[in-house]
Amino acid sequence: MLDDADLARVDAWWRAANFLTVGQIYLRSNALLLRPLTDADIKPRLLGHWGTSPGLSFVYAHASRLIRYTGQRMIYLTGPGHGGPALVAASWLEGTYGEIYPQVGQDAAGAERLVRRFSTPGGIPSHVSVTTPGSIHEGGELGYVLVHAFGAVMDNPDLIALAVVGDGEAETAPLEGSWKGISFLNPARDGAVLPVLHLNGAKISGPTVLARKPPAEVRRLLEGHGYDVLEVTGDDLPGMHRRFAQVLATAWAGIRSIQEDARSGSWDGTRPRWPVIVLRTPKGWTGPEEVDGVRVVGTWRSHQVPLAGVRGNPEHLAALDRWLRSYRPEELFTPGGAPVALVQEAAPPDELRMSASPHANGGLLTRDLVLPDLRDHASEVPAPATVRLESTRRLGELLREVYRANPDRFRLFCPDETNSNRLGAVFDASDRAFMERVEPGDVALSRQGRVMEVLSEHNCHGWLEGYTLTGRHGMFATYEAFAMVSASQTIQHAKWLEEAEGLAWRAPVPSLNVLLTSTAWRNDHNGFSHQGPGLIQNVITQRGTISRVYLPPDANCLLTVADRCLRSRSEVNLIVIDKQPQLQWLTLDEAVAHCARGAGVWDWAGNDDADEPDVVLACAGDIVTMETVAAADILRRWLPRFRVRVVNVVDLMALTRPRDHPHGMAPMAFEELFTADVDVVFAFHGYPGAIHQLVHGRPAADRFHVRGFVEQGTTTTPFDMVVLNRASRYHLVMDALNNARRTPRGASELLAWCEQRLAAHAEYVVEHLEDMPEVRDWTLQRP
Amino acid sequence: MLDDADLARVDAWWRAANFLTVGQIYLRSNALLLRPLTDADIKPRLLGHWGTSPGLSFVYAHASRLIRYTGQRMIYLTGPGHGGPALVAASWLEGTYGEIYPQVGQDAAGAERLVRRFSTPGGIPSHVSVTTPGSIHEGGELGYVLVHAFGAVMDNPDLIALAVVGDGEAETAPLEGSWKGISFLNPARDGAVLPVLHLNGAKISGPTVLARKPPAEVRRLLEGHGYDVLEVTGDDLPGMHRRFAQVLATAWAGIRSIQEDARSGSWDGTRPRWPVIVLRTPKGWTGPEEVDGVRVVGTWRSHQVPLAGVRGNPEHLAALDRWLRSYRPEELFTPGGAPVALVQEAAPPDELRMSASPHANGGLLTRDLVLPDLRDHASEVPAPATVRLESTRRLGELLREVYRANPDRFRLFCPDETNSNRLGAVFDASDRAFMERVEPGDVALSRQGRVMEVLSEHNCHGWLEGYTLTGRHGMFATYEAFAMVSASQTIQHAKWLEEAEGLAWRAPVPSLNVLLTSTAWRNDHNGFSHQGPGLIQNVITQRGTISRVYLPPDANCLLTVADRCLRSRSEVNLIVIDKQPQLQWLTLDEAVAHCARGAGVWDWAGNDDADEPDVVLACAGDIVTMETVAAADILRRWLPRFRVRVVNVVDLMALTRPRDHPHGMAPMAFEELFTADVDVVFAFHGYPGAIHQLVHGRPAADRFHVRGFVEQGTTTTPFDMVVLNRASRYHLVMDALNNARRTPRGASELLAWCEQRLAAHAEYVVEHLEDMPEVRDWTLQRP
Repeated sequence: MLDDADLARVDAWWRAANFLTVGQIYLRSNALLLRPLTDADIKPRLLGHWGTSPGLSFVYAHASRLIRYTGQRMIYLTGPGHGGPALVAASWLEGTYGEIYPQVGQDAAGAERLVRRFSTPGGIPSHVSVTTPGSIHEGGELGYVLVHAFGAVMDNPDLIALAVVGDGEAETAPLEGSWKGISFLNPARDGAVLPVLHLNGAKISGPTVLARKPPAEVRRLLEGHGYDVLEVTGDDLPGMHRRFAQVLATAWAGIRSIQEDARSGSWDGTRPRWPVIVLRTPKGWTGPEEVDGVRVVGTWRSHQVPLAGVRGNPEHLAALDRWLRSYRPEELFTPGGAPVALVQEAAPPDELRMSASPHANGGLLTRDLVLPDLRDHASEVPAPATVRLESTRRLGELLREVYRANPDRFRLFCPDETNSNRLGAVFDASDRAFMERVEPGDVALSRQGRVMEVLSEHNCHGWLEGYTLTGRHGMFATYEAFAMVSASQTIQHAKWLEEAEGLAWRAPVPSLNVLLTSTAWRNDHNGFSHQGPGLIQNVITQRGTISRVYLPPDANCLLTVADRCLRSRSEVNLIVIDKQPQLQWLTLDEAVAHCARGAGVWDWAGNDDADEPDVVLACAGDIVTMETVAAADILRRWLPRFRVRVVNVVDLMALTRPRDHPHGMAPMAFEELFTADVDVVFAFHGYPGAIHQLVHGRPAADRFHVRGFVEQGTTTTPFDMVVLNRASRYHLVMDALNNARRTPRGASELLAWCEQRLAAHAEYVVEHLEDMPEVRDWTLQRP
Repeated sequence: MLDDADLARVDAWWRAANFLTVGQIYLRSNALLLRPLTDADIKPRLLGHWGTSPGLSFVYAHASRLIRYTGQRMIYLTGPGHGGPALVAASWLEGTYGEIYPQVGQDAAGAERLVRRFSTPGGIPSHVSVTTPGSIHEGGELGYVLVHAFGAVMDNPDLIALAVVGDGEAETAPLEGSWKGISFLNPARDGAVLPVLHLNGAKISGPTVLARKPPAEVRRLLEGHGYDVLEVTGDDLPGMHRRFAQVLATAWAGIRSIQEDARSGSWDGTRPRWPVIVLRTPKGWTGPEEVDGVRVVGTWRSHQVPLAGVRGNPEHLAALDRWLRSYRPEELFTPGGAPVALVQEAAPPDELRMSASPHANGGLLTRDLVLPDLRDHASEVPAPATVRLESTRRLGELLREVYRANPDRFRLFCPDETNSNRLGAVFDASDRAFMERVEPGDVALSRQGRVMEVLSEHNCHGWLEGYTLTGRHGMFATYEAFAMVSASQTIQHAKWLEEAEGLAWRAPVPSLNVLLTSTAWRNDHNGFSHQGPGLIQNVITQRGTISRVYLPPDANCLLTVADRCLRSRSEVNLIVIDKQPQLQWLTLDEAVAHCARGAGVWDWAGNDDADEPDVVLACAGDIVTMETVAAADILRRWLPRFRVRVVNVVDLMALTRPRDHPHGMAPMAFEELFTADVDVVFAFHGYPGAIHQLVHGRPAADRFHVRGFVEQGTTTTPFDMVVLNRASRYHLVMDALNNARRTPRGASELLAWCEQRLAAHAEYVVEHLEDMPEVRDWTLQRP
């Protein structure tokens, strides 16, 4: 029940938030309206979004009240990210903004700075951003508010993530695909997501599907997703306050009741019907009803700036003045510019303020993982190329131990492919999470499971983001080609981390670890659509401070890299390796040393004996590494005096100049590997252009001749794939001879032999490719 | 009603399809089982997907029957793409396969080749692919079957797209976001999509959400999306045949009734409740019930190869033999290997066969667009840099005329931003399409509209793909940064076109035209999340035969490029240009000549007078072009004897070598622009690495010093953006002087002045950036 005193508090807080929101959009001075508005108070350019803001503040005000009464820990995720001014106003009113940005405190000067900095060059964006206290969600690219919310509450039993879904965002595919989070949320162990579907009717310039559907259909849709639907509609005051307070209390009680049942042992295991609130308020609520004779409230015209021409338009200026004064600012702020006691009382104390929640600054809560000793998982490698095994299977065993040692803070996210990717050992430690019906024949599937499998890269990626931004650790494992499905999420998360770097108050969070497997080079029955190493191309464009790409060539390198990634903070780590049986090259000790350097000469594979070689064969990526070692082997057998150096690159960013990336090798280290002027034949896992751009600026970069994936593929063997893409051992031998500093005696015979091998392969492909030795048993044939 | 004779036909066809499906997965010989199976008949490696296949063939068989009775034009879209063998079998049984691939005809030798080529190196993939007759949808990357289906039926009133949605695919975000296609489908003008949600219970290794939800909840979900739900469940035969035939007939009658109402004028305008079929059959239906004592049918174990160890396992071999013979092949094929008459009669004739539908080979139906004369839309440009206008607004006017002249075969797809992107002139010719409630205050919104706005890049992109693959033309316009949301679709479509190149029977289709606007450099109130030119990076990795990237610097170039793209076939065309008022450089005639070359010297901007310059200033992209011209202007004013050449690049792929891309400039043309050895300061719209990789292999590629977007951004002005990313006119001047072949007298003064300008800018940013001349009015200041 909302009594009158509390109603006064909530309403005052809401009016204050709305007042400051309008102020941010319009004013450069006179922020507290202590004197009549003049043209000079108006910003030269009006940029910002009013439409969604009053609804966001309304929900915020009531959530704060609920927190005051219940002590509930809650974070607020703003799907309509363009309601930035509302959330900035909220954190300023709660005092958090001034605590973080002392020059923008709760006084007249702070209020002035607050409105000036909004949507101004050198200031803050018009949407919720990394700079907004209390946010783990930007809402710039729409669609992810629910996946972030679900990720945030996993293993956070006492947390509720209140997630406002705008009706524009609700049209996006990622959002529509994320309602099903409740099918994976365990009420005993996880917290709760309370979605508020805020239907205000319009997006930028037209209506939305959900706002124009019959309400019964919307209700049915959400019920079909498994929710218990609560609805509040209107714009009447104080009626809306009373009704929304009631519904919010009902939703909270529903959540608590579900959780208490589950935690007291009286849960029958049926997936709960979690509450969702459908809130219908007019777009631009409390703003100008009409402007220049055209209706604005409740239409797309209130999306951004309802009064567009204030400067030089006395009528608009007067309307803005009336609008601002309609919130009765004189009741809300002291003469010194601080919110009055009534407003202050509307906010919960300390860390219960949603803008001050440590869950929304997850680095504060991050605890290191307990990681197993790598030596317990090392693969025995008596000599290079003598052992074959599925490298990712060893990673699965490592992750099993990580699960065991960290039952409250590590999860693996994978679209239905944990076993396919050879990571199935984790199921010894944890089942898959699943809250829908479990049947007797199911394997490794239960309510208690904490391995997250859902056939949606968007869900997996977004859950992991929410999980790490709230301070926990994880890994997203996916088929390489389909990592592009969530590439925009990878990039947006990278941008979040890039922006957070500049903010001392944001503590570093666990990294976003992405394992790409089932790669382009070995896809068996899958065809061309499954062959695309494109995500590398995208991650290398992000800032060096956060982007990392690792191409471990074998199991011991993979474990070393994984260990490093799991210890790291605030990075985006790509790890690329295939899942099929593959030759092993390095012992664990060698792998640790090799990965620490990022790249190194494999002396045993070459014959340059640390002298200047005739050619350098370099490689990054498992399949092409095998081809490179095989090429060196062929060259050594045929032309023993021809000096070949083999360089393997694990940490791709080591190739860049130190000024472009912190992992970039110093010039001297680079020359030690690649010399200053000898030609380099570089076999690369991804698109060749990636190497060309990374070595730009290195001495004589033109000498890097790169072979890689050039968009040739189909259902075929790895050997046929390297032939199709001209990156086979034979192509590398030919490249080496054609680019070497001298043409050794016997080169033409070897060239002819290579041509012949390739011609033979082409013939085999026609009818019985599987009978060709390189294909049937592609172990390296050593002399 | 399915009478007994027809039941026999349908069942025989289905058994034949299942028989050939199992054969494809297992057999390398003895395809028609004319003798007992032996180990030698079994493929050395078993790859393929059985689980979904019998259900797919079941639906196909019944759809064929419906077509026979009604003459309905229908195409079949296979969401579970891994049911490839089922669809290959279908087209072989219909005769289409042999018509297209004569060596794989309807005889014993053809059947043998059919099974051998499946999932074999050099053969065909295990999922539906470009090589599969009747397909416009690969299903490799899951999620797009409904968007493709909706795109296919737009402006195709007589077509039904039968779209099978697997329950695995139904978990993906793009699929969940695509049910709402019916909110945009006009029953009078468009055809219909008939979704079949095929719940067989499991994906690779676990159950699916929808399969385990209570059926009432699934029904409610689809009703919430607006559908009329029809359900068929079971595995009993012939009961399932009778029930499914009945439901399919009901669905078809429902569609026809909706369409007849709408087309006869008796439609009240309410969005119809289109039918959807929920089909529940066991995964691996008709396959082995148990293998080695473990249940297989109805579980994830039948996803791929139920009997995994046939070679060398007599028990499995016998089980396979029993399984194959359970379809009674002796009743289905003539001794010569052709399907018997009973089977043949199950298929519709000629182009009504779904595998032979010209709609699924859209190039056959493609008619050129009627395009307006560009001269009618030319912008007057009396001299370079004297006129400012919003270039995309002129494109909008062009597209308006395209709409008018092609009311049956052109659509614009845009997530809610047509006006924002300044393309709103199209609304003079067509409203937005919308089938939900339209209200009196709505603007440019109606049932008759054909401009497609939905706040979902996935829907927009997928609809356009379906629209072009069925032979019609269109454009997808989106905010540059959010083009990454659908980047995987762009890539998958590119792969489709790449694979189609090699198939003579696939006629070229209209290109996929993507307009990227609201670019990184000018985002006003939007912040860092809205700043990302990443799609370029992805498109340039695709094969040169299909990938095109255009960066028109002004309106006349934009129109020229758009005209070219709208005339082209089977390409992926990116067009990148901002929407804000910008300086205009070229007259239409100049633009046409400039775009035809792809890149050219702008004599009026430089002062090298065709002599060898001291430095080349190159640029690609509108904002950076202005900075480049301004830099040249500064250099000329300060150092009149310093020779600067200005090169503008419109067609990015012109930079590559001809062997890498058909648009690549010949070496001599390249040297005419860039010389052989003079340093080039290149200001690029996107990430600098893109230029580094494109010029790789050009003479002395190291001399290209590229400025571009380096992940610096926030809410700020375009000028501040170029400063933050070190690509401003001042940075370019400094780069030019630092890299020129000679240091002119006066260089140090100019360098100091540039530093001073940048320092002044940095100070302005603190408090009043908007007052700085470059910011307030960023028209080029000419001397």
